[in-house]
Amino acid sequence: MGKRIYNFNAGPAALPLPVLEEIRDEFLDYKGSGMSITEVSHRSKWFDNVINEAIERAKRLLGLDDNFQVLFIQGGASLQFCMIPMNLAIKDRPVDYINTGTWSTKAIKEAEIQGLDVRVIASSEDKNFSYIPRDFESDGKAAYLHFTSNNTIKGTQWAKFPESKGVPLVSDMSSDFMSRPMDINPFGLIYAGAQKNIGPSGTAMVIIRKEMLERVPDNIPTMLKYSTFAEKNSMFNTPCCFVIYTISLVLRWLEETVGGLIEMEKINKEKAKILYDFIDNSGFYRGTADPDSRSLMNVTFRLPNEDLEKKFVDEALKENMGGLKGHRSVGGCRASIYNATGIEAVKALVEFMTEFERREG
Amino acid sequence: MGKRIYNFNAGPAALPLPVLEEIRDEFLDYKGSGMSITEVSHRSKWFDNVINEAIERAKRLLGLDDNFQVLFIQGGASLQFCMIPMNLAIKDRPVDYINTGTWSTKAIKEAEIQGLDVRVIASSEDKNFSYIPRDFESDGKAAYLHFTSNNTIKGTQWAKFPESKGVPLVSDMSSDFMSRPMDINPFGLIYAGAQKNIGPSGTAMVIIRKEMLERVPDNIPTMLKYSTFAEKNSMFNTPCCFVIYTISLVLRWLEETVGGLIEMEKINKEKAKILYDFIDNSGFYRGTADPDSRSLMNVTFRLPNEDLEKKFVDEALKENMGGLKGHRSVGGCRASIYNATGIEAVKALVEFMTEFERREG
Repeated sequence: MGKRIYNFNAGPAALPLPVLEEIRDEFLDYKGSGMSITEVSHRSKWFDNVINEAIERAKRLLGLDDNFQVLFIQGGASLQFCMIPMNLAIKDRPVDYINTGTWSTKAIKEAEIQGLDVRVIASSEDKNFSYIPRDFESDGKAAYLHFTSNNTIKGTQWAKFPESKGVPLVSDMSSDFMSRPMDINPFGLIYAGAQKNIGPSGTAMVIIRKEMLERVPDNIPTMLKYSTFAEKNSMFNTPCCFVIYTISLVLRWLEETVGGLIEMEKINKEKAKILYDFIDNSGFYRGTADPDSRSLMNVTFRLPNEDLEKKFVDEALKENMGGLKGHRSVGGCRASIYNATGIEAVKALVEFMTEFERREG
Repeated sequence: MGKRIYNFNAGPAALPLPVLEEIRDEFLDYKGSGMSITEVSHRSKWFDNVINEAIERAKRLLGLDDNFQVLFIQGGASLQFCMIPMNLAIKDRPVDYINTGTWSTKAIKEAEIQGLDVRVIASSEDKNFSYIPRDFESDGKAAYLHFTSNNTIKGTQWAKFPESKGVPLVSDMSSDFMSRPMDINPFGLIYAGAQKNIGPSGTAMVIIRKEMLERVPDNIPTMLKYSTFAEKNSMFNTPCCFVIYTISLVLRWLEETVGGLIEMEKINKEKAKILYDFIDNSGFYRGTADPDSRSLMNVTFRLPNEDLEKKFVDEALKENMGGLKGHRSVGGCRASIYNATGIEAVKALVEFMTEFERREG
């Protein structure tokens, strides 16, 4: 099967090996159809089963009741940045945002383009987004309160979601979706690009509280209305079938092999603890996020200088550990340890980091 | 490898077998990266090569010069229906559309939602879209003239593109893209959902004349601007990597194995001729499109009654021929014979049709 590396990519990211093997093994003949999953009609019984399995597993994993609907929408989280204000704003009411980094900033910009009354009620921009704001209050007046649950680039994460005085929360969960159990009740909408924890790139999973659909205006383009997707089980037009198929297999793995989100969180916490403990005990590596705001998914750190960081990334790759370069906008190093990156990968990384420090420190 | 059927699906549709085999064979370790193509970063050298190969092959196959740019945009042709008027309309000028069926009608609706002066300058609705209109004239005043080059549902196709008096043509070529050589010069923009002739579902390929980018308004959402995709080589955000990868392989097959679009058109004409000749010589099967408007891609036909049509589709599937049911909005039967459906599939179908007629006729 060729070699496999330890994959610390920020997204597209590692997928569970058994899922990849299953895709490969049935790639020319999906379930006796005589067709590849990429060749079956989205209107066929085969694909109906696929999309419904993905939806049902997502609902079970997250404990969603019938007040919520699971949608698949192309265009990534970035298209959601504009769909959210377009669909969920309410006339004469503000929309609230919390700014915790690059992706929050982009979401805010798209609401501003639409001429809405955008209020940034909290931000950690003053310290280069190295922490999660705690000192803020919602006045309960906004149409929604948007936040980014995990900041892939800055390596911070909301351990506890913001209080919103009854204002529906809306959250970009791209990089920590399905990594831990959560209480859905304060949420009006959750969205996540698939390419971190649940599949390949090409689809966002959107979970919408059904009553939010009443806000959707009539006069916006059909393909930008949440109601279009809700009414047609995400098949108003041809969806991204291969990605939804892969999501269904990843969620099966998460439910049946891992055992659900409580188990997944335990493993994710253990992985992060190994790495953060090591960094904290090192005088060579230095974490960039405030300890109480750290992400369990994206561990960002620096080395003493940029030359060493480059050398670190290059030598790690020679040792079969990939994706350790920080985002091009911030530099440094980053180990993304999503669901499919196992504890053995983290242990191997710490071993390499120890050895690298011994040699270069 | 399991069985393989003859696949006459309208989309998602058949892909070339050597392409599927290559994807399967390198699915766990893409080019020695130690990662699946679904796991490599879109910012990596591996994916850069993939997307650039897809673009370069598309440009060579279609003979595009540097006045044109090739983009990949998620959301299918349906999202293009709203992006086109949003990006390419010009203040105080009408937009012209020709209505040749379901997809044209949807494209027109999306322009109307935006409050534009939409003129339907020709339509074949009077005869249930069974022909391509010839008796119309552009007055040269519109911002663009939109038409659907091949009508997947009705089985009609423009053999010669409309005259537009210098107005840039805009065309939905989803179902005959890359099936024949064409003159790009009258076009301002061409778009095609990948899932017919060039790949799996999940991405539209958009070819835009660069000077059209000057029309893009500032105040529309970032992800709905053609300029966003043009400036970032379609990677402002994470694209649908797996589909672009598959497109690169399908276009390689088209260029290197088939030998280009002139060769492809010869084969497509031969396939269509076999099927239409057979239908025309039968008193049992009846084509639904006017002979001079027939599609080389989607051969639509009826049997004497709906019971026989159902039986035909069911029995064909037992003989390993799938996807022969007509679109649910029109009924009847349809054989989609895109690039990857070979002449042997068409011959097998005619053999089955002969036998079915002998038994049931």
